[in-house]
Amino acid sequence: MQIKKAGVALLGLGVVGGGTYQILRDKREMIMRNDGVDIQVVSVLERNADRVRELGIDGALVAGGIDEIINNPKVDIVAEFFGGVEPAKTFLIKALLAGKSIVTANKEMFSKCWSELEQAAKQGGGGLYFEASCVGGVPVIRAITDSMQANRVLSLKGIVNGTTNYILTKMSDEGADYATCLKEAQKLGYAEADPTADVEGYDATYKNSILSSLAYRRRVPVDRIYREGIKDVDVKDIAYGKELGYTLKLLAVSKLRDGKIEARVHPAFLPDSHPLSFVKGSFNALFLQGDSVDDVMFYGRGAGALPTGSAIVSDIVFAARQCEHRRFDFETDGEPAEFTEDFSSEYYLRFDVKSDCGTLEKVAGAMRKNNVSLKSVLQKSEDTLVFVTHEVKESVVRKAIGEAEQLSGVDRVAAIIRIEE
Amino acid sequence: MQIKKAGVALLGLGVVGGGTYQILRDKREMIMRNDGVDIQVVSVLERNADRVRELGIDGALVAGGIDEIINNPKVDIVAEFFGGVEPAKTFLIKALLAGKSIVTANKEMFSKCWSELEQAAKQGGGGLYFEASCVGGVPVIRAITDSMQANRVLSLKGIVNGTTNYILTKMSDEGADYATCLKEAQKLGYAEADPTADVEGYDATYKNSILSSLAYRRRVPVDRIYREGIKDVDVKDIAYGKELGYTLKLLAVSKLRDGKIEARVHPAFLPDSHPLSFVKGSFNALFLQGDSVDDVMFYGRGAGALPTGSAIVSDIVFAARQCEHRRFDFETDGEPAEFTEDFSSEYYLRFDVKSDCGTLEKVAGAMRKNNVSLKSVLQKSEDTLVFVTHEVKESVVRKAIGEAEQLSGVDRVAAIIRIEE
Repeated sequence: MQIKKAGVALLGLGVVGGGTYQILRDKREMIMRNDGVDIQVVSVLERNADRVRELGIDGALVAGGIDEIINNPKVDIVAEFFGGVEPAKTFLIKALLAGKSIVTANKEMFSKCWSELEQAAKQGGGGLYFEASCVGGVPVIRAITDSMQANRVLSLKGIVNGTTNYILTKMSDEGADYATCLKEAQKLGYAEADPTADVEGYDATYKNSILSSLAYRRRVPVDRIYREGIKDVDVKDIAYGKELGYTLKLLAVSKLRDGKIEARVHPAFLPDSHPLSFVKGSFNALFLQGDSVDDVMFYGRGAGALPTGSAIVSDIVFAARQCEHRRFDFETDGEPAEFTEDFSSEYYLRFDVKSDCGTLEKVAGAMRKNNVSLKSVLQKSEDTLVFVTHEVKESVVRKAIGEAEQLSGVDRVAAIIRIEE
Repeated sequence: MQIKKAGVALLGLGVVGGGTYQILRDKREMIMRNDGVDIQVVSVLERNADRVRELGIDGALVAGGIDEIINNPKVDIVAEFFGGVEPAKTFLIKALLAGKSIVTANKEMFSKCWSELEQAAKQGGGGLYFEASCVGGVPVIRAITDSMQANRVLSLKGIVNGTTNYILTKMSDEGADYATCLKEAQKLGYAEADPTADVEGYDATYKNSILSSLAYRRRVPVDRIYREGIKDVDVKDIAYGKELGYTLKLLAVSKLRDGKIEARVHPAFLPDSHPLSFVKGSFNALFLQGDSVDDVMFYGRGAGALPTGSAIVSDIVFAARQCEHRRFDFETDGEPAEFTEDFSSEYYLRFDVKSDCGTLEKVAGAMRKNNVSLKSVLQKSEDTLVFVTHEVKESVVRKAIGEAEQLSGVDRVAAIIRIEE
C-alpha cells in the first residue's frame, strides 16, 4: 500500500491540542497501517514553553508565529484549538489561502465564519474539517456529509452541551435547584468558572448553526436561531414534568417544513420514551430524521481531551486521504434559506394563581377562546395550575397567555416550556 | 463543480433493490447538487418483468445475464440485493475482477466471502462497500472505517436483528411467551415464515463477523463466533430479570482483550440504565468502545426498503467520489486473530429445585467451592432459585453448574443467561 505523508501544524496545545498530539504520537504506526497515511506533527504554535515540555514536544517544532506555519511547505493540514473567533479566523483563512486544509473544534468561530472560510478554501484548494466542533468524538458531521446522501434531512434534535445536560440531569435525579447543581458542576469541572456560554445556550446555538446548515444545505446563521438557556429552569417544573411523563433537556432543534427552516435552542420536555430522554450527565446525542433513513441517533461523549482529539485526528487522517475536498457553498449551490420564527409546538404552562374558585375554568376558557387546545389541566396546588396544550403556534399561545395573565385570579405565568414529541 | 458520472447496475429488484431504484430516481438531481456525482441506473438484473414494469423501469435496461453487466463499460458500480451466498458471490467477484466497485447489503455472503472479494477487488481496482449489511441505514460501517482512525476499538455490543428485538420487547412489555410473540411478529412482517436465520442468531452472527473484523482489523470468521438464539428464552426469566433491574436482548458482542478476541451472539441481560436497554421493537443499535472516543452508540432502523436503500445509495455515492478505494486485507496487513472461547461474564442462573430445606445453601456452596462468587441469591418460589454471579469464566461457571445439578435437591439448571455490564 502506498503511504501518503501529511504534515500537521497544531495551533494551541491546551486540553484538546495536547490530547490530539498524544494520539498522533501514540497511534502514528497504527494509522499508517490502517489508513495508509503517515501523519507527522511538524509545527506547533504555543507560547507556553512549559506546556511544550510537559508534552515532550521537541522545542524545534515550536513556530515563532503563524506566518512561519503558513510558509512551511511541510505543513499540509492546520489543526486549531484556540477557541473564540480571533485569532483563529485570521490564522485559518491565511492557512486556507496558502492551500492548506484546516481541522477545527472551534464551534463559535466556525459557525460565525464558515462562509468566509469556504471562500478561502475554494481559492487555496484545501478542505474544511470540523467534526470536533459538534458532539465531541461522535462522528455526526461525517455521518451527515458522507452517509445521508440519500436523504432530505427533515429535522435535527440534539443534546449538544454537556454542562447543561449534567446540570439538568442532576436537578432531575436529586431534586436540587439550579444554583446548587451549577456549583457542583463547576467543582467537578463540568462547568466553567464563567458558565455563560454553556448555560445561556450560546454553545448549543453555535452547534445548531453548524449542524443545521450542513443538514439542510442552507446557511442557518447563529442570529436566526432562537436561544434560551437554562438559568430560569425551576426544579418544580422538572418534577411536574416527571409526573406527566416528561424529561427536561436543553435541546437544539431545527426543522425544515414547507421550505422554511425553524431553528432554536431552549429547555424542552421530551416524552420519557424518547431515546434522547436517556441521555444523562455530560453525554450528548443527536437525533436526525431523514426522508429515507427515518430516525437515527448518535450518542457519546460531547467533550474531553481524548474524545474531541479522536474527532480531530479522524479529520486529519480523512483530509490526508482525500484527492478532492468537499465544498459547502450554501450561498451559491444551495437554495437561500427562509426562516420561520413562529414555531409550532406543544406547551407546558405553569400559572401562579390566587386560590379563587373558578380560576382554572377561566384560564382554560382564555386558552380555548384563543384557539389553544388543551391536552391536560392539573391543579397542582391551591395556587398552581399546570396546562399541557396540543400543538399550537408560538404566536397563538403567547397571545392566549397574555390574556390569561390579565385575569383577576392569575398572578403570572411562571413557566413556559415547549414539548418536543 | 465538476460533475462525475457513475453508472450503476442493480442486481435484484426486491424490497431493497426497488427502494434503492426509487431513491436514485427521485434524488438524482439532489445528489448531483450536493455531492457532485451524477448517478445513473444503466442496467438491472431481474427476471420478474412485472416487477420491472411496476417500478417504471425501461425494459431496455434489463440485462440478459450477469455477463452483459460485466461487459458493459457504462457500469462502474454493481449493487447486489439477492441475499444468500450464491449467485451473489460469483457475480460480485466477476464484477470486481472487471474493475467495478460493488455495493452490497448481503451479510451472509459478505461475512463468509469477504476475503475472496478483497482479493478480486485488489486485482480489479474497485472498492468494497457494505454499509447496508449491518444496522440498516445507520452508518456504522462508515463510522468505524472513517471516523475511528484515532482508536483501538476495545469492544462492540449490538442489537443488530430487528426480528428478535421485536419479539423480546413484546415478551417483556406484555409478559407473553416466545411462541405467541413470534406468531405476532410473523403476522406483522417483522419475522419471516421461516424465521430460523433471525431467531437462531445467524443473521446477528454474520453482522458480528463483519463489524468485528472491521473494528479490530483482524478476520473474525463466522465459525469462531459463539451463537445462541432466542428460541429457549422463558418469559419467566425476563420477569425475574426485570425485578433485578435487567433488560433482556439478543446481543452481538465482541471484545479485544490482551490480544485475544472473543465474539458471541446470545441472549443477554443488560442493566436498565445501559443505553442499549432502551432500544425497543425493530430498532437496532451498535455500542462501541474505543480507547480515545470512549463510548459511542449508533441507533436507528435496522431494516426496511428505504432505510437500507439509504445505506446502499450512500455507498454508491461515496464510491463514485473516491479516487482510491480502501483495502481491508486483514490477512496480509493485520495481525492474525487469536480467539478465546472461554468468555468472562456475570451470569444469571435459574435452578429448578425440590422444595427441600437447605437446597439454597447447598447450591450456593457448590458455587463457592468452584470459585463462583455470588452477587445475589433469590428464592423466587418453593422450587425456583435464582443466582446472579460476579464476573467469572464460562468454563468455571459451567463446572459449578455441573456440580450443582448433581445435588439431590436440584432438578436441573433451567436458565443460564449472561449479563453484560
